[in-house]
Amino acid sequence: MPQFKAPITDIQFLLNDWLAIDKHYQDIGAEGMDAELVNEIIAQGAKFAEEAVAPLNREGDEIGCKLIDGSVSTPPGFPEAYHEYIANGWNAMLGNPDFDGQDLPHSAAVPVHEMLSAANLSWRLTSILTESAVLAVDKHATDDLKAQYLSKLISGEWTGTMNLTEPHAGSDLSLLNSKAAPQADGSFLVTGNKIFITGGDHDWTSNIIHLVLARLPNSPAGVKGISLFLVPKFLLDDKGEPAQRNSVGVGSIEKKMGIKASPTCVMNFDAAKGWLVGEENNGLACMFTMMNDARFQVGIQGLGTAEASFQGALSYARDRLQSRAPQGTQQPEQKADALLHQPDVKKMLLTQKALTEGCRALAMLYAQQMDVEKYTSDERRSQAKKVIAFLTPICKGFMTDMATEVTNIGIQVYGGHGYVREWGMEQLVRDTRIAQLYEGTNGIQAVDLIGRKLTRDGGDMLKATFDLLSSRVAAMSDIGKQEQASALLQEWNDTSKALLGAKSVDLAGAATDYLHYSAYSILGVLWLDMASAAAHSSNELIVKGKENTCNFYIKRLLPRKDIHKSVILTAADDLMALEDQQYDYV
Amino acid sequence: MPQFKAPITDIQFLLNDWLAIDKHYQDIGAEGMDAELVNEIIAQGAKFAEEAVAPLNREGDEIGCKLIDGSVSTPPGFPEAYHEYIANGWNAMLGNPDFDGQDLPHSAAVPVHEMLSAANLSWRLTSILTESAVLAVDKHATDDLKAQYLSKLISGEWTGTMNLTEPHAGSDLSLLNSKAAPQADGSFLVTGNKIFITGGDHDWTSNIIHLVLARLPNSPAGVKGISLFLVPKFLLDDKGEPAQRNSVGVGSIEKKMGIKASPTCVMNFDAAKGWLVGEENNGLACMFTMMNDARFQVGIQGLGTAEASFQGALSYARDRLQSRAPQGTQQPEQKADALLHQPDVKKMLLTQKALTEGCRALAMLYAQQMDVEKYTSDERRSQAKKVIAFLTPICKGFMTDMATEVTNIGIQVYGGHGYVREWGMEQLVRDTRIAQLYEGTNGIQAVDLIGRKLTRDGGDMLKATFDLLSSRVAAMSDIGKQEQASALLQEWNDTSKALLGAKSVDLAGAATDYLHYSAYSILGVLWLDMASAAAHSSNELIVKGKENTCNFYIKRLLPRKDIHKSVILTAADDLMALEDQQYDYV
Repeated sequence: MPQFKAPITDIQFLLNDWLAIDKHYQDIGAEGMDAELVNEIIAQGAKFAEEAVAPLNREGDEIGCKLIDGSVSTPPGFPEAYHEYIANGWNAMLGNPDFDGQDLPHSAAVPVHEMLSAANLSWRLTSILTESAVLAVDKHATDDLKAQYLSKLISGEWTGTMNLTEPHAGSDLSLLNSKAAPQADGSFLVTGNKIFITGGDHDWTSNIIHLVLARLPNSPAGVKGISLFLVPKFLLDDKGEPAQRNSVGVGSIEKKMGIKASPTCVMNFDAAKGWLVGEENNGLACMFTMMNDARFQVGIQGLGTAEASFQGALSYARDRLQSRAPQGTQQPEQKADALLHQPDVKKMLLTQKALTEGCRALAMLYAQQMDVEKYTSDERRSQAKKVIAFLTPICKGFMTDMATEVTNIGIQVYGGHGYVREWGMEQLVRDTRIAQLYEGTNGIQAVDLIGRKLTRDGGDMLKATFDLLSSRVAAMSDIGKQEQASALLQEWNDTSKALLGAKSVDLAGAATDYLHYSAYSILGVLWLDMASAAAHSSNELIVKGKENTCNFYIKRLLPRKDIHKSVILTAADDLMALEDQQYDYV
Repeated sequence: MPQFKAPITDIQFLLNDWLAIDKHYQDIGAEGMDAELVNEIIAQGAKFAEEAVAPLNREGDEIGCKLIDGSVSTPPGFPEAYHEYIANGWNAMLGNPDFDGQDLPHSAAVPVHEMLSAANLSWRLTSILTESAVLAVDKHATDDLKAQYLSKLISGEWTGTMNLTEPHAGSDLSLLNSKAAPQADGSFLVTGNKIFITGGDHDWTSNIIHLVLARLPNSPAGVKGISLFLVPKFLLDDKGEPAQRNSVGVGSIEKKMGIKASPTCVMNFDAAKGWLVGEENNGLACMFTMMNDARFQVGIQGLGTAEASFQGALSYARDRLQSRAPQGTQQPEQKADALLHQPDVKKMLLTQKALTEGCRALAMLYAQQMDVEKYTSDERRSQAKKVIAFLTPICKGFMTDMATEVTNIGIQVYGGHGYVREWGMEQLVRDTRIAQLYEGTNGIQAVDLIGRKLTRDGGDMLKATFDLLSSRVAAMSDIGKQEQASALLQEWNDTSKALLGAKSVDLAGAATDYLHYSAYSILGVLWLDMASAAAHSSNELIVKGKENTCNFYIKRLLPRKDIHKSVILTAADDLMALEDQQYDYV
């Protein structure tokens, strides 16, 4: 398995040359932040991801997690790497400084998060869920709960979980029926069965803090009758230390396609003691507090695994000697030329590279907007919130679909060896496949984009996103690329606006196509913008690499937008025409 | 895991209504064959696939194969199902009647082969390799070798293997360096290390017959110095029974992404006794005897797994209740509507169905041409050979790429449950992934299509394929669809001819796009043709189901051809522009 190396040069290009991060921090008033500090954070994050986390990835897949006497054990090295992670403060990067968080801007944290997902997705997941729990507790919990739990969740001394799904209630949470019974002391007894709980149990920390959706007695039916509860694995004693075991247990660990070293648990809450987080019957809104962030994090998982696969494929294509190149012998001293010289292999690698780097640019643009939301309080903040809301389903849906394509290419470059586990390429396909499914399937993302984000408020979120991209295009120095980008953006905006007012069934039928159409269009704008910015780089590899990859993207990947566009504005009649029995003639 | 049901209605439609199989058998002089017999074979094949093979699939994946004291054991039930398979004569369907084969037409066998791959791909693989070995021995071996081995390979009493790949020689067999040393008695001692050997050892039969590529002393370098040898696991005694163990052994079983119940072996030949098959230094040509057949069989593997995934997704979408449909409540008596009512889910299922049924039509057209090749001896035969040669890389490459898409959709319809192994949907993704890799990666298929099949003999194979499809279009009864199909076919033919004379590097860069462009175009013609024929069916589900699915294909999948077309005729300059270090800026 190839050694993961964090893509530092590309990240630094994006931060320094493309986003002008120094000026960005000044503009938004991020005190104490500058390019030097963010580059140092990224360098240290790279070292940790490469040296402490990546080496555990392959063996973690083979060994997996085990449930022994009701407790989960993770693969060798996993707990130790986590302890190093929290000791070095990585878990606290984004945390509230009032609870010992480092309060860093997102643009500093996102590159590190990408590296961690690239290095070892299974290992990374538990800390992602903890970050989500931190957001919910920080925003919605009482001061008393915060005082007891928040610092330790931010530091990572305890981890957090999100308990939403039940066997019969996945995409449709309105169906969930876990119950919470109020007690005289203000606590609640939570009873129910939850599935797909990431990090539901493990051997890393002395406590695990479960956030659980459940219904209060006599609450309204549907999603308006769901409340959020904090249910610790161990109840705290007077000193705030874990003491008595709560009545929550692991029923089993799911046997999955991938992320085998991440314990995905069936959780049984049997009158487990918990406390309300947020208002009664407002649990879904509390969950949505962190939904943008959680969905973006899943997109970053896709980005990371895609990068890891690209690196593996590139290194194999450089080393593996098979056949002569059609353009003429390239390595006469060898019996054959390296695979990298085959045009079809170049096309595969360039597809990996153009998609991965394009998505990284999108991720960093999103991170920049999260910074704006975090640090500003004027009109910029409300605009950034709209952009984030609009781009969230695109980041989640497209980056994870992209990752399945890119990691499958990674197998393909290896030929039959890509199918053998020891090379690690097929693991990336299996691991990343979950990202298309959880935190809302990509179908749910697409319906969210077209049915809510696009059409709500008469297209206001679309306009904010269009304005942001337009401002980037307006600042491009390469006039030819600027014209291309401007035309592309205008076409996307016009097509999007034409959807406002469409029938909901037609929107639902066009949803996935609209998400992909938008993503390929936006990535086209970002690629032209990157190539324009790269021309001023002092690194000749960046200058030429971005220019050539941009040309490839525009010629060979951007046309994909047109197949999606061709069906967006048509009705769903063809989808609805087929009656049930016509599917299988039975 | 949903119970596999063979898609009998669709197969019968293709045979009876679309291919007019009775008339076909009369035209080619396939004595004793008629629609009634082929339908009976298919019904019996369906029963065997559904009842004897499919139930072993899920457990086979979990248990896998084991190497114990140098011998491979397969999962429980696998040997018994194989014994039933050969006892019922399934292995002998296509065999030479002089050696107890049933000599059936391919159009009768291909549907059964699809069902077996759909039911349990791991179990099916060993018999596919045996069929390949039969072809090579039948065509190239001496009468003496045939007398000893052929009947038992045809019946399946012994299985066969193909030993091509070595660790450093995969796509490029010119690099292989296994050796064969001639002995005084006319035999050879074969020495070398082979990898990725399907069915290299197992617990099913009393002997295994290895066909091995190796070099004779002083043979020319490259592919012109490779010969084919028959090397049995057990040498035969005077009565032709397996006796002394030959010096060939299993080094290990590969740990793979999928097909875990199929033993993929590392084989060590240590001066193992063998006999030449075919001429000296003509081994590669002997292998190519069966290459068309083997590659087509791999395409059928893709078709089978796609069908299995479609069935699973359809059944889940019918049962799983989540949310209300955007077109209005469909099941008011339930708490939610079935997934099937969601337009985005319909789109996923229709994509599975349109691709799977389209590929099944292509497979049956190919089977019909194999029948023509088998039974006729005039101009029709040479035309059929050209069509087969042209369509082989398309069947292998497209049907297996299609299967990865379709089986991934199968996961997606299940949401998070699709990622859990017990449902069987993710197994289909893992199992079918190998089909894009072996028997020549799909990149190799694409280069074969554009660099050899299309351009050799001035486009003669293209012309034969165009003529066959034109004759089908000319016979269509629906004039509107006929016009659409004719225009589509003409566009494909014109685009293809425009490639004749292109530079080899540009062809190599366009190869995969040309394969997909051709496949989507041809499937478009076949869908229009099927819908036209279906209008005359007495089964209303076929009439409407084919019409509606054709409309879906034309509207939502056929446009994919245009992205591929957009790059086919351009040069590979953009691929070649990127220099090595620009890939990763290091």
